[in-house]
Amino acid sequence: MICLGLDCAGKVAGVAVTQDGQLLYECFLNRGLTHSETLLPMVQNALAALGLSLSQVDLLGVCAGPGSFTGLRIGLAVVKGLALPGNIPCAGVSTLEALARCCTGSGVVIPALDARRGEVYWAAFSLPDCQRLTPDAAQPVGSLEDFLKNCKNPVFFVGDGAALCYNRYSAQAIPCPAPLRQSRALGVCLAAEAAAAAGQAVPAAQLVPCYLRLSQAERERAARGM
Amino acid sequence: MICLGLDCAGKVAGVAVTQDGQLLYECFLNRGLTHSETLLPMVQNALAALGLSLSQVDLLGVCAGPGSFTGLRIGLAVVKGLALPGNIPCAGVSTLEALARCCTGSGVVIPALDARRGEVYWAAFSLPDCQRLTPDAAQPVGSLEDFLKNCKNPVFFVGDGAALCYNRYSAQAIPCPAPLRQSRALGVCLAAEAAAAAGQAVPAAQLVPCYLRLSQAERERAARGM
Repeated sequence: MICLGLDCAGKVAGVAVTQDGQLLYECFLNRGLTHSETLLPMVQNALAALGLSLSQVDLLGVCAGPGSFTGLRIGLAVVKGLALPGNIPCAGVSTLEALARCCTGSGVVIPALDARRGEVYWAAFSLPDCQRLTPDAAQPVGSLEDFLKNCKNPVFFVGDGAALCYNRYSAQAIPCPAPLRQSRALGVCLAAEAAAAAGQAVPAAQLVPCYLRLSQAERERAARGM
Repeated sequence: MICLGLDCAGKVAGVAVTQDGQLLYECFLNRGLTHSETLLPMVQNALAALGLSLSQVDLLGVCAGPGSFTGLRIGLAVVKGLALPGNIPCAGVSTLEALARCCTGSGVVIPALDARRGEVYWAAFSLPDCQRLTPDAAQPVGSLEDFLKNCKNPVFFVGDGAALCYNRYSAQAIPCPAPLRQSRALGVCLAAEAAAAAGQAVPAAQLVPCYLRLSQAERERAARGM
């Protein structure tokens, strides 16, 4: 099975191609450009580098959330566009699971994304098997304390919210070098392949974002009682 | 400091660009094509994606060995060619250290490369600080037994020789998923930046491969007593 995975849930744009769990191609770009400019040319380069056409892709993976609302929408829109002509099955995966799937070692990894306003999107996974220990959540950084207190294994943080977590919990966690905290499209492919193997691939029309909380506009409308 | 790193010590071709330890761009290609075809276009794509010219690169990193003799020669030749016009400083790094620098978690990582004839190129590093515990060596797989027996921390293997090591030492090591065992050019950049910080960057003319053992032709000549 050939899987094309896209990551644009945060500042980084990533594209990867795996075949039965083995990485064939990966590109990572952190240049501050908008994903709407960079993502489709990156997909084109990936297929060209491997001499593949889109019709040879068996599965499309994309971060469904949590993450930047705009980034998630761009990623889902691109994947829906790629999937529709050939009815390629799709898997919308957790951005946090994709991060966890790129981590080596044992113990527990907590992928965390900066959700602003003192909150993080986070979840915990055991390693090296990448079994999920907690559901994806949007909570204040301080909310991780209970989990960390009860966790018997060494813990480390990845993702763009890792710095927030290390600021607060440096004594309870082992360090993770900053360049290894970044998200990779490889993780999207691995999570998508696992979803497909579990019968969870869907037609493009059924792909939906998973924001985990209301957008700023929705929060403000709710605050105004509308 | 902007560092351009090249990895072509094995079957995989990789190019990465870091700035002060942060990953800006990375491309990984595992297509079975020769590095002499793929590596220079990959460098060109990396610089174009970041809007950089070669004159803005402060440091060139490359795997000096161990690894495929042909791959090492291609990588070193490309880097020498890129470095010479602008006298860009170079750092030839250990392929094994580059692998270790991409590993998360704690304990000990042993990067291992398949050196054929039942041997591996290997070394051990502590994590998460990536401190070297043993020098790069070319030895039979069975030679790792002493190190593993005396190692108090959890150990895992990466690199294209990891499968050989897991075949023999599965009971003494924690698993590492196959797609996370691959080499990444990010590791070359991180090792090159560390070498430069330690004053070990050199002019292109001083870059030399580090094969760790004789080539097949040299072994056969020695066996014939010539």
